[in-house]
Amino acid sequence: MSLSVAVAGASGYAGGELLRLLAAHPEFTVTTVTAFQNAGQPLIALQPHLRSLSHLTLVETTPQNLAGHDVVFLALPHGKSGEITAALPDGTLVIDCGADHRLTSESDWAAFYGGEYFGAWTYGLPELLHADGSKHRDELVGATRIAVPGCNVTAISLGLAPGIQSGLLEGDDLVAVLAVGPSGAGKALKTNLLASEILGSASAYGVGGTHRHTPEIVQNLTLAGGTDVGISFTPMLVPMSRGILATSTAKLKPGVTAAQVREAFEAAYADEPFVHVLPAGEFPRTADTVGANTALVGIAVDEATRRVVTVTAIDNLVKGTAGAAIQSANIALGFAETTGLSTNGVAP
Amino acid sequence: MSLSVAVAGASGYAGGELLRLLAAHPEFTVTTVTAFQNAGQPLIALQPHLRSLSHLTLVETTPQNLAGHDVVFLALPHGKSGEITAALPDGTLVIDCGADHRLTSESDWAAFYGGEYFGAWTYGLPELLHADGSKHRDELVGATRIAVPGCNVTAISLGLAPGIQSGLLEGDDLVAVLAVGPSGAGKALKTNLLASEILGSASAYGVGGTHRHTPEIVQNLTLAGGTDVGISFTPMLVPMSRGILATSTAKLKPGVTAAQVREAFEAAYADEPFVHVLPAGEFPRTADTVGANTALVGIAVDEATRRVVTVTAIDNLVKGTAGAAIQSANIALGFAETTGLSTNGVAP
Amino acid sequence: MSLSVAVAGASGYAGGELLRLLAAHPEFTVTTVTAFQNAGQPLIALQPHLRSLSHLTLVETTPQNLAGHDVVFLALPHGKSGEITAALPDGTLVIDCGADHRLTSESDWAAFYGGEYFGAWTYGLPELLHADGSKHRDELVGATRIAVPGCNVTAISLGLAPGIQSGLLEGDDLVAVLAVGPSGAGKALKTNLLASEILGSASAYGVGGTHRHTPEIVQNLTLAGGTDVGISFTPMLVPMSRGILATSTAKLKPGVTAAQVREAFEAAYADEPFVHVLPAGEFPRTADTVGANTALVGIAVDEATRRVVTVTAIDNLVKGTAGAAIQSANIALGFAETTGLSTNGVAP
Amino acid sequence: MSLSVAVAGASGYAGGELLRLLAAHPEFTVTTVTAFQNAGQPLIALQPHLRSLSHLTLVETTPQNLAGHDVVFLALPHGKSGEITAALPDGTLVIDCGADHRLTSESDWAAFYGGEYFGAWTYGLPELLHADGSKHRDELVGATRIAVPGCNVTAISLGLAPGIQSGLLEGDDLVAVLAVGPSGAGKALKTNLLASEILGSASAYGVGGTHRHTPEIVQNLTLAGGTDVGISFTPMLVPMSRGILATSTAKLKPGVTAAQVREAFEAAYADEPFVHVLPAGEFPRTADTVGANTALVGIAVDEATRRVVTVTAIDNLVKGTAGAAIQSANIALGFAETTGLSTNGVAP
Repeated sequence: MSLSVAVAGASGYAGGELLRLLAAHPEFTVTTVTAFQNAGQPLIALQPHLRSLSHLTLVETTPQNLAGHDVVFLALPHGKSGEITAALPDGTLVIDCGADHRLTSESDWAAFYGGEYFGAWTYGLPELLHADGSKHRDELVGATRIAVPGCNVTAISLGLAPGIQSGLLEGDDLVAVLAVGPSGAGKALKTNLLASEILGSASAYGVGGTHRHTPEIVQNLTLAGGTDVGISFTPMLVPMSRGILATSTAKLKPGVTAAQVREAFEAAYADEPFVHVLPAGEFPRTADTVGANTALVGIAVDEATRRVVTVTAIDNLVKGTAGAAIQSANIALGFAETTGLSTNGVAP
Repeated sequence: MSLSVAVAGASGYAGGELLRLLAAHPEFTVTTVTAFQNAGQPLIALQPHLRSLSHLTLVETTPQNLAGHDVVFLALPHGKSGEITAALPDGTLVIDCGADHRLTSESDWAAFYGGEYFGAWTYGLPELLHADGSKHRDELVGATRIAVPGCNVTAISLGLAPGIQSGLLEGDDLVAVLAVGPSGAGKALKTNLLASEILGSASAYGVGGTHRHTPEIVQNLTLAGGTDVGISFTPMLVPMSRGILATSTAKLKPGVTAAQVREAFEAAYADEPFVHVLPAGEFPRTADTVGANTALVGIAVDEATRRVVTVTAIDNLVKGTAGAAIQSANIALGFAETTGLSTNGVAP
Repeated sequence: MSLSVAVAGASGYAGGELLRLLAAHPEFTVTTVTAFQNAGQPLIALQPHLRSLSHLTLVETTPQNLAGHDVVFLALPHGKSGEITAALPDGTLVIDCGADHRLTSESDWAAFYGGEYFGAWTYGLPELLHADGSKHRDELVGATRIAVPGCNVTAISLGLAPGIQSGLLEGDDLVAVLAVGPSGAGKALKTNLLASEILGSASAYGVGGTHRHTPEIVQNLTLAGGTDVGISFTPMLVPMSRGILATSTAKLKPGVTAAQVREAFEAAYADEPFVHVLPAGEFPRTADTVGANTALVGIAVDEATRRVVTVTAIDNLVKGTAGAAIQSANIALGFAETTGLSTNGVAP
Repeated sequence: MSLSVAVAGASGYAGGELLRLLAAHPEFTVTTVTAFQNAGQPLIALQPHLRSLSHLTLVETTPQNLAGHDVVFLALPHGKSGEITAALPDGTLVIDCGADHRLTSESDWAAFYGGEYFGAWTYGLPELLHADGSKHRDELVGATRIAVPGCNVTAISLGLAPGIQSGLLEGDDLVAVLAVGPSGAGKALKTNLLASEILGSASAYGVGGTHRHTPEIVQNLTLAGGTDVGISFTPMLVPMSRGILATSTAKLKPGVTAAQVREAFEAAYADEPFVHVLPAGEFPRTADTVGANTALVGIAVDEATRRVVTVTAIDNLVKGTAGAAIQSANIALGFAETTGLSTNGVAP
């Protein structure tokens, strides 16, 4: 018998992607979809691509409307999930795609987000290596409150953690630059997100260590064994609706060879269903991950600069958000981790 | 009386852009356009956007066809310009948009290109700072052989040189990652350049220090006063026909402040007609440079990592290639440097 | 127990999409993938988005390699399937995504394609209305040779047939213009399919009644009851990898009302799982059908010109090709028609 | 001595394009730029691509601020120009890029726009053929109030008028469908104009004869000699920032040959600097007109349906708006018609 599911923030891009994946999941049935301004409208009016859910109508995002479900997915702007989840029973599995419960450091929260701090939840990146060689997956088993990582964070963490955990890379002078599509910014009505502004153009934002995902990357790589982790992170907005291509670099420690680095990554992800290391000389395209819960990692070592360069591709809305949420839910609830999730991208 | 001009390689993207700019230049008249396979065809069949040049017919790319002009622009695949220019008189101004005459180091040429080395020409990046505070512009006055920089090289060199020359930045651990459109790769028939492969997707290439533009960046920053310059450079191909957005980072030297760095960049480019430093907190979009010979540089300092991050936008076909060629020709011939070149982009 | 499947032409876009859908189909197991030049390579090298099929290696496209399967899907250039299928046993279900077996008229074949004519197969458009009110679906039950419609044909036929069949529209002066992405043209190395040529640009081709899909549209609408069917059909290539948006118009017969036309379309598709008529005033986006076997039809009547205008969106690779192939196979084999096919698009 | 120019609505896309073209015009100097909400800001903050105009600051859009210039260009939402121009002296050349003064029929204005009707001005489409074989250009000489045509209208009118004027085509059952980029819709903050909605997707709007440009097309073709002109017009929004590709069709009158039609178009545009008929078998791409005041027309006759199909490409912001404005101003003021306008597109 399938579990009843509510999705809060169902009119946005993350909410829409959650619904697309949930509609294909054999263990879940979406019974409630909520929104703020769009409450009262048929879901299909806001998400015209979700034909199989055209029977649903948006109701208001309130604790009452979210209560009484086995699983609640939140796809709300940051700062919104705290009070809503306070009203839900402890036994309900609540998975937050927003930022509210990602950071373990209250001072990082204050510095990068601000407002009331509601504390960190179990972090939804199962493949994250810990310093002791275990994976973060273990913490997700049986969890009832899960915080889904930021999309950029996932791409960069997966592209660096095995090198940090293995002790092969210096963690204090990391540099990551990524190309990302505008869907990560949501459906917000901002001039710089208009099609005319983005078609045929690339631009940078959150430059100089100001992007909110920065402390979360540091948090992950510290968990992976890094000491004094420091990262210069710059996102570039490019004209594709979905996708993240993250170029992440780190200094090799003295004496470390390219083969050792490759080995560390291959060992880390050998048994992972959703993270794949590409053969030497190959680098991923984001198109290969569209709609899939897949992360592809290409690795090169630049001997002249003694830097490793990894290139990681994900779909920001799937492995970067909604897919990670469902993967984490699968683990928490004891389903096969891959249930309802595709590894095959929609390309070209 | 206008000077007679020949353009070799006129059927490609760089050749087409040279012609577009030359058609608007008051001192030049294009009298000869050459090609390899397309010789014999009307230019308009290959470059249907160049209506004002529809009277021209492509002839074969031979030294004979290129002889007898005041100025010859070459937009040929690398390895092709050496023997052709050997046959042209010394007094003819020859400007090579290809790679053949960019590198001053024969061993770099051998390592990154291979084949016969024809030696370096005067380098066509007028705004490049030298260690002594002069600009490279001085070397272009009266030059008769000019090598136009690689497009990626221009974006990164402009985005780092003032910091290096001023002694504020460490030059030995630079990292640059850029987003670039496919026109930089030319009209080559390769599967990975098909629209279906590139639309909706970002991908990386030349990863791990293998891209041919790497030694040229080092050459420029060494000229700017860098010692032991090292750079990890990664280009990402994104779905826009034109444009480069380069994110370049360098470590601040101990004690250096953000204000000092900004000052160095602003001083370096204060009088430049084509390079502009944006106000603090602003970063460029490539759209703002489309069709223009403009480079826009945004600067931020990340105090947490003690890295400066500069974001530079150019049009790879204009300031990155054809515009730089004409700007250099203007200087070499004693015309006003901005003759025939627009600073205004075609946006949106 | 699942059926064994071979896909010929597995390195192209249509082949890749067949494989993506087949990988998610519970009744089929892909055991053989074939190609011409790429035989010998791992499938993942050509289709890096198909992670779940990374165990497959391409073999040569020969009758021998295709023999011995329950179902064979062909995604070959036109003119290639005739001799291959001649060698396959009658009992094998063969589904041809190419053009070879679509046209019932040998003279149309000669005029629009040329070369040997191999005869028409059962046509794979289940929703096509016949003059007698039946659907083409009936003919597919138990079929062993199925020709998948051309992608443009599907969009236009679905957007006009109910109006023709109901006798409300004149069929002799139809006009259809559509926007289509380059994936429909396949992986062919042609200059006009390069990303630089297509990004930021729209262009027309096959103008003036010369496009090969023209007689196939006439064939379908004649089957729907049209007499003297004539259609002016023009495709426009636009910068999106997938999708067809077809604007189809027809004259209303005298006295016919807008309500009658809407009723005819709604009645025709009321029970269809994959074809949906949008409410009055709404028109589809192709994004809503990406990756889905869905066709969305919007309808308006222009009283000033007495023309109905329908706008139909499909994914050219799914409902336009691979999805139609699998939908038809489901019917032929007695599976539920929707098996393995999603109705939800991947948007944004 | 150059003329002083004011541009109202300078923060939008049409205003920006006017300024880009005016900056390159030898006879005009922009001295005033106005806006509504953005008054007080530096122009460069809103139009970061207009480096050469970075000395200008936006002032409020009021009659006072617009007074005292030789030429005033208006790029305002419809309904805004009436009262503003009422306050300007008769001798000032006022050119309205909005819709307010395009329609000669008050009832069409009421039906398609509504609000107060301010009457029609001289219409800014110099190449429009009149029934008597003259061109609309004649009316522009010395004009002081000019209404710039709608962008879609220009593409379709140019693509049909010579066939109508020559009496070769039926005008009562025209069909036009076009692909257009989102810049035509302006900088309005609407969800359907967000990049995530438009990237990778095509959609239709204004379907069924409701688009406001419809009566304006009828007005033009009636002027060209059409009787009972009727047109079914449908625009499709596609993922390119600029450009219109219009496919326009008309029935040939009995006995008319393809050669006659081609001859009529070639004769009509033979001496036009900005409108070009392509050779038989060739059809335009919008990329070839980007940034240029060029219209390219391809022509085919479909003998099976007895319809001519013309395909017309323009840049909606140039020949479709700002370029037409300046071309008209040149004529009105007695400058060479091509002054300050390029015929060469920015491609790829």
